[in-house]
Amino acid sequence: MFRLLATDGLARAGELITPHGTISTPVFMPVGTQATIKTLTPEQVAGAGAKMLLSNTYHLHLRPGEDTIAALGGLHRFMNWSGAILTDSGGFQVFSLAELTKVTDAGVSFRSHIDGSLVELTPESVVDIQAKLGSDVMMPLDECTSFPTPRDYAREAMERTVAWAARSRAHRRMRGMGRQECLPHRRDETRAENTINGGADIPVCAQALFGIVQGATYPDLRVECARRLVELDFPGYAIGGLSVGEGPEVMNRMLEVTVPELPADKPRYLMGVGPPDDLLDAIARGVDMFDCVLPTRNGRNGFAFTSTGIIRMKNARHARSTEPLDASCDCPTCRNYERGYLRHLFRAGEILGMALVSLHNIAFFVRLMEDARRAIMTGRFKEFHAEFIQSQTER
Amino acid sequence: MFRLLATDGLARAGELITPHGTISTPVFMPVGTQATIKTLTPEQVAGAGAKMLLSNTYHLHLRPGEDTIAALGGLHRFMNWSGAILTDSGGFQVFSLAELTKVTDAGVSFRSHIDGSLVELTPESVVDIQAKLGSDVMMPLDECTSFPTPRDYAREAMERTVAWAARSRAHRRMRGMGRQECLPHRRDETRAENTINGGADIPVCAQALFGIVQGATYPDLRVECARRLVELDFPGYAIGGLSVGEGPEVMNRMLEVTVPELPADKPRYLMGVGPPDDLLDAIARGVDMFDCVLPTRNGRNGFAFTSTGIIRMKNARHARSTEPLDASCDCPTCRNYERGYLRHLFRAGEILGMALVSLHNIAFFVRLMEDARRAIMTGRFKEFHAEFIQSQTER
Repeated sequence: MFRLLATDGLARAGELITPHGTISTPVFMPVGTQATIKTLTPEQVAGAGAKMLLSNTYHLHLRPGEDTIAALGGLHRFMNWSGAILTDSGGFQVFSLAELTKVTDAGVSFRSHIDGSLVELTPESVVDIQAKLGSDVMMPLDECTSFPTPRDYAREAMERTVAWAARSRAHRRMRGMGRQECLPHRRDETRAENTINGGADIPVCAQALFGIVQGATYPDLRVECARRLVELDFPGYAIGGLSVGEGPEVMNRMLEVTVPELPADKPRYLMGVGPPDDLLDAIARGVDMFDCVLPTRNGRNGFAFTSTGIIRMKNARHARSTEPLDASCDCPTCRNYERGYLRHLFRAGEILGMALVSLHNIAFFVRLMEDARRAIMTGRFKEFHAEFIQSQTER
Repeated sequence: MFRLLATDGLARAGELITPHGTISTPVFMPVGTQATIKTLTPEQVAGAGAKMLLSNTYHLHLRPGEDTIAALGGLHRFMNWSGAILTDSGGFQVFSLAELTKVTDAGVSFRSHIDGSLVELTPESVVDIQAKLGSDVMMPLDECTSFPTPRDYAREAMERTVAWAARSRAHRRMRGMGRQECLPHRRDETRAENTINGGADIPVCAQALFGIVQGATYPDLRVECARRLVELDFPGYAIGGLSVGEGPEVMNRMLEVTVPELPADKPRYLMGVGPPDDLLDAIARGVDMFDCVLPTRNGRNGFAFTSTGIIRMKNARHARSTEPLDASCDCPTCRNYERGYLRHLFRAGEILGMALVSLHNIAFFVRLMEDARRAIMTGRFKEFHAEFIQSQTER
């Protein structure tokens, strides 16, 4: 499902082939936790250039439930997104959002953050849930540790993550999941195209199950976890449990020891990362895929990522500015609106402001990946990386 | 600025000619209080069929201020709306939102509902503010009474409204406002078309100033007010101070005595109305123009207007429904989304739900006006009206 097209140092340009389109890598996936990129229609998200997004098993299992989504034709049809979707396993959310979480080797039980009801997830049920959702890439249940984590517990969580990955894989094979069992994305003739696949029907769907490398901030545990997962032979590998407070230096060090253990012909996905600097640092270390709430969450708070750095739309200096948010951006927000208007919307508490800056921020992250890819293809990623850092003077 | 094309009983079909397009009447104007139709982009609003919208002098004067909007090229460019805009005078808002309001014959002073600052509006300043905003239709400052209002006070407010209307008109003439002083709508070549005017530049702009009929629920005061305003010869007449708690019977009675006093060749605008039933009742009595927050406010609360009545999207019965919101609607929401997904969005507190139902509701109101117009043109408005009432069985 992955084609490596070019390398530049450790940085890679490739293609991820999914049932919902071929995705150029490096790729950034906007986050649609509850089957919606907050404040935006899927048409707007596609208009910002995104071709693949992330949604959450944990949230969708709790509400509306995978059976409801399956009854409504699967996640793509449910949310009217014809591009690719990766679903996170819920591991991270169980440990960060849920209450009274209990972990055993069997799985996790916890109280829902919505209504306090008791919920259990196992490696097997998490695969079944994602099969019903019909995402293009599914993640196995993992145990995500916080920072800092004692070595003993980090090993225990890593061992469990590997064991769960093996069970997830076996369960998926036993259930015979492949082309025959996955939900095709029904495309209704009357629905508007969001043009990602040129309107082509997707007749069959093969969901890929990635492995997730854990091991906290211990290089040897990271290496061991990666090797054991590679032995299990997944079509792609995620690196989890980073960007949880350990700081960029430690994160980069973990990438430096982990990535070389992963096969060159498989995609590498750094989960939950991150600010533009971190994305480029990770690309420089051989990572291909990313997701993060930053463009949308910061967008809702009026923080805009631009070619000259982060600008705060609520700032009074923008009140009469006829400048676009980012003069070098061609997203719908920058084409159609001026800073003065955006500032007014935030000051007046209007939702449209959140939507327009979220839209721009997604376009910014998408273009950053496109620019990085072009630099890799032409052998000048290092220069591009340095130029980008230098350009970010506005704070 | 108005062409009467057909009548059917008292109901009228016509055209309102504005610097930003010719608007078919009856027309419903969605409300963009703070220079945005809440939760929607102007492209989405245009996509729902709206060609004219309303914005508020009161709110825009307080925030961001008419000078800021003028510096940013006027209201149309500020909010990227190339259709027509009517601005309310602020009279209604001063009496409903502001604090410590004092009315004298000179004007009104009040405390801003935003920051408590002291603000004064006069008939003259309200015209000047709207000239700076550059709306297509401006309204004079009026004194809007609540319900019930004693007769003495209703007369006093009506007298003041007439006097202010005369001063507004004189001030507008004295200032020589017409083609030369109004702000043209600059259309930037790089901006997306929202296609209302086929992309034509609007080289000059003549803002129309309407008169507003007050008189509370006293037929003789309404008649007197209408006659005195007609003597002043406005290009259009609004009927204000209704739908404030007096009920549909009294409102219809007020329309029945007021409308016959207004010239047939001028548009008639019923301010702040209303539910579909009230719109059709008013059309039946000769009204041409409407505005109301109902489609957007109810949309944000998950109440959808449909061809079979109002449905509540939060209701559990929609959880697995693959039906569109309204099977007889071709708006983007009904083309692309099912009730099950919309219900999920409301249950999960997602803004996209508010946006999609607001969009549908605007399309519903726009189509109701189009259908009414077609019925008038073919001499079957009465039947159309009765059929519509009968169709609204869902509650």
